[in-house]
Amino acid sequence: MSEGKKSVYKPKPVSGFPEWLPEVRIVEQQWLDHIRRVFESYGFCSIETPSVEELEVLHAKGEVDKEIYVLERLHREEGDKEARLALHFDQTVPLARYVAQNFNELVFPFKRYQMQRVWRGERPQKGRFREFTQCDIDVINIDALPLHFDAEMPAIIWEAMNGLPGMEGQKIQVQISNRKILFGLLAHYQIQDAQRYTTLIDKLEKIGEKEVLIGLKLNLRLDKLSEDLANKFIELAKIKTSSASELRSMTQKLDVENETFKTGVEELAFTLENLKNISGIVADLSIVRGLDYYTGTVYETRFLDDPTYGSICSGGRYDDLASQYINKKLPGVGISIGFSRLFAYLLEKGALPVGQKSPAHVLMVLPSEERRADAAAAAQKLRARGYNVELYHAAKKIPDQLKYASRKGIPFVWFPPFEDGRPHEVKNMTTGEQKAADPESWKPEKENLHAVA
Amino acid sequence: MSEGKKSVYKPKPVSGFPEWLPEVRIVEQQWLDHIRRVFESYGFCSIETPSVEELEVLHAKGEVDKEIYVLERLHREEGDKEARLALHFDQTVPLARYVAQNFNELVFPFKRYQMQRVWRGERPQKGRFREFTQCDIDVINIDALPLHFDAEMPAIIWEAMNGLPGMEGQKIQVQISNRKILFGLLAHYQIQDAQRYTTLIDKLEKIGEKEVLIGLKLNLRLDKLSEDLANKFIELAKIKTSSASELRSMTQKLDVENETFKTGVEELAFTLENLKNISGIVADLSIVRGLDYYTGTVYETRFLDDPTYGSICSGGRYDDLASQYINKKLPGVGISIGFSRLFAYLLEKGALPVGQKSPAHVLMVLPSEERRADAAAAAQKLRARGYNVELYHAAKKIPDQLKYASRKGIPFVWFPPFEDGRPHEVKNMTTGEQKAADPESWKPEKENLHAVA
Repeated sequence: MSEGKKSVYKPKPVSGFPEWLPEVRIVEQQWLDHIRRVFESYGFCSIETPSVEELEVLHAKGEVDKEIYVLERLHREEGDKEARLALHFDQTVPLARYVAQNFNELVFPFKRYQMQRVWRGERPQKGRFREFTQCDIDVINIDALPLHFDAEMPAIIWEAMNGLPGMEGQKIQVQISNRKILFGLLAHYQIQDAQRYTTLIDKLEKIGEKEVLIGLKLNLRLDKLSEDLANKFIELAKIKTSSASELRSMTQKLDVENETFKTGVEELAFTLENLKNISGIVADLSIVRGLDYYTGTVYETRFLDDPTYGSICSGGRYDDLASQYINKKLPGVGISIGFSRLFAYLLEKGALPVGQKSPAHVLMVLPSEERRADAAAAAQKLRARGYNVELYHAAKKIPDQLKYASRKGIPFVWFPPFEDGRPHEVKNMTTGEQKAADPESWKPEKENLHAVA
Repeated sequence: MSEGKKSVYKPKPVSGFPEWLPEVRIVEQQWLDHIRRVFESYGFCSIETPSVEELEVLHAKGEVDKEIYVLERLHREEGDKEARLALHFDQTVPLARYVAQNFNELVFPFKRYQMQRVWRGERPQKGRFREFTQCDIDVINIDALPLHFDAEMPAIIWEAMNGLPGMEGQKIQVQISNRKILFGLLAHYQIQDAQRYTTLIDKLEKIGEKEVLIGLKLNLRLDKLSEDLANKFIELAKIKTSSASELRSMTQKLDVENETFKTGVEELAFTLENLKNISGIVADLSIVRGLDYYTGTVYETRFLDDPTYGSICSGGRYDDLASQYINKKLPGVGISIGFSRLFAYLLEKGALPVGQKSPAHVLMVLPSEERRADAAAAAQKLRARGYNVELYHAAKKIPDQLKYASRKGIPFVWFPPFEDGRPHEVKNMTTGEQKAADPESWKPEKENLHAVA
């Protein structure tokens, strides 16, 4: 406070709540635009739901209440009777509520995408944020939903993820399983509480075969079952193939006579068959998505070079989306890109094409205050033709204006006619070349076209 | 629970948290796309900030804490020491924090747009939501910011708002004033607490001239000033003109000898002069934006047919954006479209072009399961050419598939080759015409082009 220096409160970034500089945000926008374009190209419509739901709605599933952020009005008055509101932690619970609430207005099969922020009060760690964006697609139908959708989901996601700028060098794999296979196996041995087993299998990659085996044997003892059955679980969890026929023969070896088991294998084989043109998709029976409500197909997606980073895109099929809200059977299948996880990973790796700090294609030079109207008119002509043009804000020296364009990464600098009658000129900031141009017909050179596209 | 009927919890919409059906959301997306396109065409870059700030940051301005939503983790453990977080209530406070925090990384003048949700715990009423979207543009510079930006802001906003689908029939008016004029008048009469007067002037439209006069006289008595000065305030507040010279002559009549007053008039005249090509922009000296931190130019925007709906787009100039965070002088000027207010208003009026429930341009018929691969291939060809194509999900009768397209508002239905060897055909759902077409070269007819653009 001394020496006339003001005391300032220096704010720090809030842990778990990411925000980006403009040059990173530009890439994030390209990502969001690309994903949206792919989703829409398959006819999925957009919805957005409020950031909050009534706490009762979020509690319906019960499991994750530890992670929920509840809202309180700072100056709530005594006696204010309001429903307790909380930030949604995924987009599936809001979807279920939305579909039930608008059931009569929607056309089924209802195919929607949703790209919003969600919140979880978890302790922040690598790849885990408290506020993050998810990009979901789901198809919901009444009574029954064709199995073809189980194959369409990962195909769409594959196209969406692999077309993202910066993903060119990344090897990813979509791993598919069907929970009926494991449920069938467990039913075959009259095991009642499947959940205890599914959560264990789910940990195979994380804690290793030995630890899983110990856990399995403990559970088997509780269920008074022969210990060597444990090996069957491990054997099942190790099945990994992209061939439908191989899947059939490998699962046959497990010798399980059970309708659920067989249905699961056939559904998975069908899905695999329909995805055979996509190289990065495999059946992996260790995938079960432990705590979720899926009833058939399940998906996860991993970086092949870094499988411990966890799934960057997950989902599955559920028999009944919204039975807690509506007396209808609404089966669905969906998949969700963990957008922020994926984006932050590539950003940290330096894989994103971060460069331009501005969406401007052209910086319009302001030669002098007297020429402002000419410069503004030229800028407006280029804008009308679809180009983004920033008019420089002051009649500074030309080198200062060029430096500004260069610092912002603006690929072209435009000179409107000067007092001496010179015509319009445009400078390509990559090549340094400067030449006459007409704002009514100018087109960027090929080498800089990507920056303008 | 009797008769085997399940008990369901029927969720209601949460008051103040709007959500839309797919056909409305499509228009909302068109709006957001259009506004973004205009903002970027002037070289504004996008930023997004977290939905939350530390409560201390939001409190910096002090005034509006009543409206703040604070977050609590539902199962926060005893002794957890975490900064108190709250949802932001505007985008200016986060911008100030962002600029201070990233000062060394940003290029100035920093021109950014921001289109995010904000939250206010106010009691919901017509045109007031608890969660809503704002679309802001601001320019921030170090030490000084050219006055030209005060004219550029409403020009950009004018272009953005008037190009929105559904706004064609709406008459809006951007009202501009400069707070220095009123501050100058008050200083001329040695009035210390200007705030008491600015809030009164701000109410002129709402409570009427008579009530304002009563309030003014009360304040004047407190300040021991002659009552007939009140008439000068009213006279000032009634000045409304789009001519810079008229503004000068009208304000001259008030006979105020004061530098602040003169500067305010000249700044406003300059701004007006630079906006003379836009018909819907006027100087209106009743505009002061009572509770805000503006120091010069201020903006509001109203529907001419419904001025009591309140401002749909507001902003102004501030001398010093972030002095509480950083020892720099950072003047800025900005304006914000009250997106949700504006959108909800037009929706209620039935003025929005609500129709299509799907982004699909084409519904691809599935003639039979055997022909699925052909249908899928044709769909993929059209997608590669930029069209959105939904593949129908089941080999139902053709009339069922046509009905589905019609219910979703999909403008074209495509028939892939049938078993009988007929070539591809496409049906225009508007005209009913059906004819042969090639997926590699087909283009929509003019009358349906708007749906595909």
